[in-house]
Amino acid sequence: MSTTQTNKIETIKASSTKINEVDFSNLSFGSVFTDHLFECDYKNGEWQKPVIKPYAPFLLDPSTRVFHYGQAIFEGMKAYKDENDDVWLFRPDENYKRFNTSAVRMAMPEVPEDIFMSGLNQLLQLDEAWIKKGKGNAMYIRPFMIATGTGVIANPSDNYKFMIILSPVSSYYSGEVKVLIAEHYSRAANGGIGAAKAAGNYAAQFYPTNLANKEGFQQVIWTDDATHTKLEEAGTMNVFFRINDTLLTAPVSERILDGVTRKTLIDLAKSIGIQVEVRSVLVSELVEAAKNGSLKEIFGAGTAAVVSVISGFSYQDVYYELPKIEFTMALQLKTKLENIQNKLEEDNFGWTVKI
Amino acid sequence: MSTTQTNKIETIKASSTKINEVDFSNLSFGSVFTDHLFECDYKNGEWQKPVIKPYAPFLLDPSTRVFHYGQAIFEGMKAYKDENDDVWLFRPDENYKRFNTSAVRMAMPEVPEDIFMSGLNQLLQLDEAWIKKGKGNAMYIRPFMIATGTGVIANPSDNYKFMIILSPVSSYYSGEVKVLIAEHYSRAANGGIGAAKAAGNYAAQFYPTNLANKEGFQQVIWTDDATHTKLEEAGTMNVFFRINDTLLTAPVSERILDGVTRKTLIDLAKSIGIQVEVRSVLVSELVEAAKNGSLKEIFGAGTAAVVSVISGFSYQDVYYELPKIEFTMALQLKTKLENIQNKLEEDNFGWTVKI
Repeated sequence: MSTTQTNKIETIKASSTKINEVDFSNLSFGSVFTDHLFECDYKNGEWQKPVIKPYAPFLLDPSTRVFHYGQAIFEGMKAYKDENDDVWLFRPDENYKRFNTSAVRMAMPEVPEDIFMSGLNQLLQLDEAWIKKGKGNAMYIRPFMIATGTGVIANPSDNYKFMIILSPVSSYYSGEVKVLIAEHYSRAANGGIGAAKAAGNYAAQFYPTNLANKEGFQQVIWTDDATHTKLEEAGTMNVFFRINDTLLTAPVSERILDGVTRKTLIDLAKSIGIQVEVRSVLVSELVEAAKNGSLKEIFGAGTAAVVSVISGFSYQDVYYELPKIEFTMALQLKTKLENIQNKLEEDNFGWTVKI
Repeated sequence: MSTTQTNKIETIKASSTKINEVDFSNLSFGSVFTDHLFECDYKNGEWQKPVIKPYAPFLLDPSTRVFHYGQAIFEGMKAYKDENDDVWLFRPDENYKRFNTSAVRMAMPEVPEDIFMSGLNQLLQLDEAWIKKGKGNAMYIRPFMIATGTGVIANPSDNYKFMIILSPVSSYYSGEVKVLIAEHYSRAANGGIGAAKAAGNYAAQFYPTNLANKEGFQQVIWTDDATHTKLEEAGTMNVFFRINDTLLTAPVSERILDGVTRKTLIDLAKSIGIQVEVRSVLVSELVEAAKNGSLKEIFGAGTAAVVSVISGFSYQDVYYELPKIEFTMALQLKTKLENIQNKLEEDNFGWTVKI
């Protein structure tokens, strides 16, 4: 990965800043955006000149393809400011690679590395004042691409728009998370787009998640759609299970997103001597472990929430409460990861990249 | 279904018409739009005042939910002008019902019947000059709804926009259609959104369809994702198989769209004494029938193409060419359906509704 800025991107600065209107001690996740955005359009078979400009709405024709045929992908990343006011990205190469993997699966053009990385770096530099120091604080980065061609015919678009927008955040989830194991609904098909960070995957989850909410569960643990016997993801996160002192998580597949936090936690866990098994985890195995007391923890892993502790799960109308543990692997891994991200602990993995 | 127009919708007329710029003898499907559109926004938990206004681009924030989490649904319908200049819709109640079925599955608000039907009728009346007489000519109608709330958090949107846009069309497909039977990729999961007319379902098909195109096939016949043994849809259409003199098509399910043309063709076929079996059709059965000569026809059925004749299929790298038949069921059913739609033949089914 190259983070060198080969070209200075044309930059149109906002005439004033909105930063003073923002209460940074009371941020609602993903709802506040910085003064600028990065934009690059694709047309006539090639990427056009990128630009950084004031964050603002833009015009789209009613027949724009993204509205009708759903070609839309995104990434979620974070930047952190250390005590010396240096700004750091966390494994940006992983997000860049996955973005283009998603693009290929959705029949969209791949974004060149220089456009993605230069845009990201120069945008963060320009809106650097919006990145706050301190654990939990971060700049949530949302690169995304949409089909902007027009016409209601179900073919891939000819035009696309790639954008990066920035949203300062503190934390994501709070409180207890109870989950429902999916027995009917599912998030991904074999031979489908579950491994892509495609917009349509998220909309598909809302209805079954709403049903779970009504029964008192905050999230759904998705199972394979063919048999509903294998545990795959939790809500919009990858999921880990601790049985006795072993951490278990499903292998990535065409149904399961290759999560950056997931792979980071696997490496971190191994580095501190935790045994990790990457293999299919069966619902029956989880229920058995809950019954015999060997199931100690369940947690989700993702960029937004980092680690989200799950307090219990329901399956076939039986609720299994997890034991309360003083010193959890979830907390241990979350603390270690956040310390590395916030540059409070040495990064022996080469994950953090200074902008 | 009520097609009475209870309320006159506020109408802002275009200052001039674009109709004289359009070559109606050379229309590219879904690429030309009429002078006006219908729009109704949903916010604060309710539908706002609808409006008919000039067709024009509109502004969206970069964090608009449809770009990131893909809540977007649509319908495809047609209106026809008869020899007396009366304008007819075809089974609009079916599209209306399916639109709301899709809305529920995608966690979007249902559109009230009066808004949908009054909007449709009054918009067609206003742009009536754009509807041309004659077989093959029609007004393609695209009702759609997108999530317009803002913020990059993976929850259902609070705001939505419902629109109807109109595109004059002549015909859709032309030429020979060879299809590839899907052995790996798929369009829908068990417990997924395959039965919804959701934007994300279409984007998911583009990449495998592109792969098929490269091998010389125009479309993919989708199979069930778990076993790839059952024939489900063809491209974006339902699919029919004629074995000897029986028509076969898969039952609708949560993986298969409840197509209006599909159910219409089933009824039409039965009405003229064709035996129809609605049941799972196995790939193995199709291959066997192709080998022993009992497979006579395959055709897709959908609003856009009406009936799309398939000339052969490939499975496990073997290509099976279908026999050339003088008088096909496909043509017989297509002619009958188009005659009813164009009011050239009596509608004994009550399918056509005058606006």
